[in-house]
Amino acid sequence: MITFYYAPNTIALATHIALETVGAEYKLVRIDFSKREQRSAEYLKINPKARVPALMTDHGVLTETPAMLLYVCQCFPEANLAPLNDVFALAQVNAFNSYLCSTVHVAHAHRMRGYRWVDANDSASIAAMQKKVPHSVSECFELMEREMFKAPWVMGNQYTICDMYLFTLAQWCEADGVDIGRYQNIAEHREIMSGIPAVCRAVAAENAAP
Amino acid sequence: MITFYYAPNTIALATHIALETVGAEYKLVRIDFSKREQRSAEYLKINPKARVPALMTDHGVLTETPAMLLYVCQCFPEANLAPLNDVFALAQVNAFNSYLCSTVHVAHAHRMRGYRWVDANDSASIAAMQKKVPHSVSECFELMEREMFKAPWVMGNQYTICDMYLFTLAQWCEADGVDIGRYQNIAEHREIMSGIPAVCRAVAAENAAP
Repeated sequence: MITFYYAPNTIALATHIALETVGAEYKLVRIDFSKREQRSAEYLKINPKARVPALMTDHGVLTETPAMLLYVCQCFPEANLAPLNDVFALAQVNAFNSYLCSTVHVAHAHRMRGYRWVDANDSASIAAMQKKVPHSVSECFELMEREMFKAPWVMGNQYTICDMYLFTLAQWCEADGVDIGRYQNIAEHREIMSGIPAVCRAVAAENAAP
Repeated sequence: MITFYYAPNTIALATHIALETVGAEYKLVRIDFSKREQRSAEYLKINPKARVPALMTDHGVLTETPAMLLYVCQCFPEANLAPLNDVFALAQVNAFNSYLCSTVHVAHAHRMRGYRWVDANDSASIAAMQKKVPHSVSECFELMEREMFKAPWVMGNQYTICDMYLFTLAQWCEADGVDIGRYQNIAEHREIMSGIPAVCRAVAAENAAP
């Protein structure tokens, strides 16, 4: 049995969509950031990083979106959400997801989580970080649109875990000051993703009243 | 035939060690940052991200350390550098490597690459970022030592790609203002890794005069 710990409007949505897509049975547990539940003693036993998401499995707890996404693929190979039998194609999937976690998500995080990288009381530096976000995140989307996105899905003809992960980050474009309309393939992709039933179920579950 | 593009003192070392460990045949190409070769038209065709490393294979180019490391494992399964047949254990490997790329490496990068996240002329904010690095990188090492490192290797009894990746980041502790001696397992690990022949070969090749 799987338990998935999440908070709304976080990167948890990507793995949540994957779980819905493969038809996994899982329990959904909301971590309330407004009550600082991610730092509660109980949650720190599950995820000492004090972040979401976390995936509790029969074998132990997993964290980190790229790892959880590939895990879901491998546990449900019949869903065909990654080219598991093509070593190079799988590496491209992993490379795309790694770029999302190490560069795109990090650029975005400087809008809300600047205290991670400067003194929390240094409001001038935190504001300076926030000011750069529209530029730095736009650069990422420009690069993905021009060099990585193969259309109609991220990896071309196969719908993969990359689509769920990109969609989750693309949800934040407006708040990040990024004009997604400049990236035609990615903008269309977000629109198409928004209508997929498994995506709708995950979004609705996260937005439901706790 | 593989070509590996690297620069000394970068995260390229992790994949370089993996290539040496499995006995891959590859050509090593140094990208000279002092000449801004990573931004040359020629290199941008190989890696439009303008970063190292990049791995040119017969199938195309790969980037992103976690993806390249797993690719090397899967191309050389006899080297047994990851638990490829254990879905959960492999997810733990991927989770560790994802933490290194998205959190540890990013914390470190605020010492030298602050211009990515604030205006390049904002020297006060860039200095504020640099000042936080000893704290933020130390927090990562403290968490890895306490919660993740299983000893004697990162994943316990199996020597994996996680060891090469952690070693590469641990090389930077002194420059990052991190007292590695406070993290006994990781400090011993760095010492042991420093003596492994494949590690020595990769380090020597990178430090050789161009």
